[in-house]
Amino acid sequence: MGSISNGNTDTSIRSQISKQSTSPAHEARLLSRHNLITNTSGLAPNYLQANLLILPSKYAQDFHDLCLRNPVPCPLLGITAPGDPHSVTPSQCIQTPNDFDIRTDFPRYRIYQNGKCLSTSVPSLLDVWTPDHVGFLIGCSFSFEDALTAAGLRPRHQKTNTIVAMYKTNIPLLPAGVFTGAKFIVSMRPYKAHEVERVREVTRPFLSTHGEPVAWGWEGAKEIGIRDVHTPDFGQKQVWEEGDVPVFWACGVTPQMVVEAAGDKVDGLVFAHEPGHMLVTDWTTGDLDKLRPGF
Amino acid sequence: MGSISNGNTDTSIRSQISKQSTSPAHEARLLSRHNLITNTSGLAPNYLQANLLILPSKYAQDFHDLCLRNPVPCPLLGITAPGDPHSVTPSQCIQTPNDFDIRTDFPRYRIYQNGKCLSTSVPSLLDVWTPDHVGFLIGCSFSFEDALTAAGLRPRHQKTNTIVAMYKTNIPLLPAGVFTGAKFIVSMRPYKAHEVERVREVTRPFLSTHGEPVAWGWEGAKEIGIRDVHTPDFGQKQVWEEGDVPVFWACGVTPQMVVEAAGDKVDGLVFAHEPGHMLVTDWTTGDLDKLRPGF
Repeated sequence: MGSISNGNTDTSIRSQISKQSTSPAHEARLLSRHNLITNTSGLAPNYLQANLLILPSKYAQDFHDLCLRNPVPCPLLGITAPGDPHSVTPSQCIQTPNDFDIRTDFPRYRIYQNGKCLSTSVPSLLDVWTPDHVGFLIGCSFSFEDALTAAGLRPRHQKTNTIVAMYKTNIPLLPAGVFTGAKFIVSMRPYKAHEVERVREVTRPFLSTHGEPVAWGWEGAKEIGIRDVHTPDFGQKQVWEEGDVPVFWACGVTPQMVVEAAGDKVDGLVFAHEPGHMLVTDWTTGDLDKLRPGF
Repeated sequence: MGSISNGNTDTSIRSQISKQSTSPAHEARLLSRHNLITNTSGLAPNYLQANLLILPSKYAQDFHDLCLRNPVPCPLLGITAPGDPHSVTPSQCIQTPNDFDIRTDFPRYRIYQNGKCLSTSVPSLLDVWTPDHVGFLIGCSFSFEDALTAAGLRPRHQKTNTIVAMYKTNIPLLPAGVFTGAKFIVSMRPYKAHEVERVREVTRPFLSTHGEPVAWGWEGAKEIGIRDVHTPDFGQKQVWEEGDVPVFWACGVTPQMVVEAAGDKVDGLVFAHEPGHMLVTDWTTGDLDKLRPGF
């Protein structure tokens, strides 16, 4: 694992990491491990970023099923073996198994118990992880924002340097085992009505990172149960321009809602990433076809 | 293709098919081709049965995406190449490519245009198929009914010799390309409240044929928008016993609702199976793990 001395200054740690890392993704993970970055939006372009859920192993099969039944909010990028925080299946997901730790390589974590969030912005899970924990890496919509920008459709929250707005919806997740009763969380980016079809096209190939929108327009907002787009449940209120309509994507915060909905049906500690503080994986946009199931 | 003379009686055709066929699944397809069977419920136990949607090729990518985004109502078992009604990818799905025709090997078909059903119970598609059509085979819940029966949980509609009750719901399908605005169709089987967890367990491994239920109980019925379980939208009203609660599964009639919702956004003829009149594939329950995506 990281051999960087704690006595060094941030600048010299950064310089050592830069020399030691084998790719921009590896570098982002090392910077996260040393808590030198927070929000990972825009980091290591072209690499797929991941949301996190870590559960006691007895719930791993049910949660895996939940992901397969709900691949739009919960697209799987990788899973750790029980008790092994260092290697991820499939191995393409993290190509530095000798220099990876799921307990440290996200910038910040959350800790849940009985469906309730106990702690936020935790820098490491080293003290709370047990050999019985299994980690799930879930695709993140940051991964398609570069493609939107390249198509001249830069997300508003990037232009205004805010956190994307997120909302609770009435869209049910299809239940799997112990995980019942949860609803989708969606992220929202405002676009002009005439841009919506192009926005759908650009994000469509990103099936493994939430893909195309789940709803759009003012009528679409109402249908998924969002009464007031100016009051997001997570993230920040967005700046609106004349002629904007809301466009909604499934969001990787959904797994945290799944844990909240399961409540005390889940025994033991559950860990998640702090929203916006993702893992940069070694999957790239060039791997999207490989990650796509189907024939 | 079938070399059976039309001059023979049904009995002698059946006997020739029985000699000529290489498996119970192949035999069921040949019987369907000669229109000697209708409802395929209970036929060729252990073989997975398939629902059908056949579309003009320009909508194939969007429909494929729709299936991948909604794998519970639309689990993919196989796809034909454009214009080739004889072979299916993956090849394990139909292992008699020299003796298969998607246009004849379902017992009965439906024909759609502009989202409207033009004809029902059509015995063959030979006259309407074009070299531009692509067929999608979608898992069917008949496949898990044997497992329920083996667990002492025989579906009510089999005991009473009725067609399973099906309902429109408020559960949205996640849109893909031209396919927007559709809702799930569910099938319903009544069980005692104390049997529900066991019923969920038994059907859980059948991810590729709709898997475990999407809702259950009287409160569950209300949540998915079903006001009166005694008035199904398709199939037949079920016989209820004291202490029964409804249990709902995603249903393979959903793709037909997808086509109805798309309306005149889809040009050209679309074909589907007649509900209850399935294709018996060469996939077996032993292949369920192979069909399961995930890691």
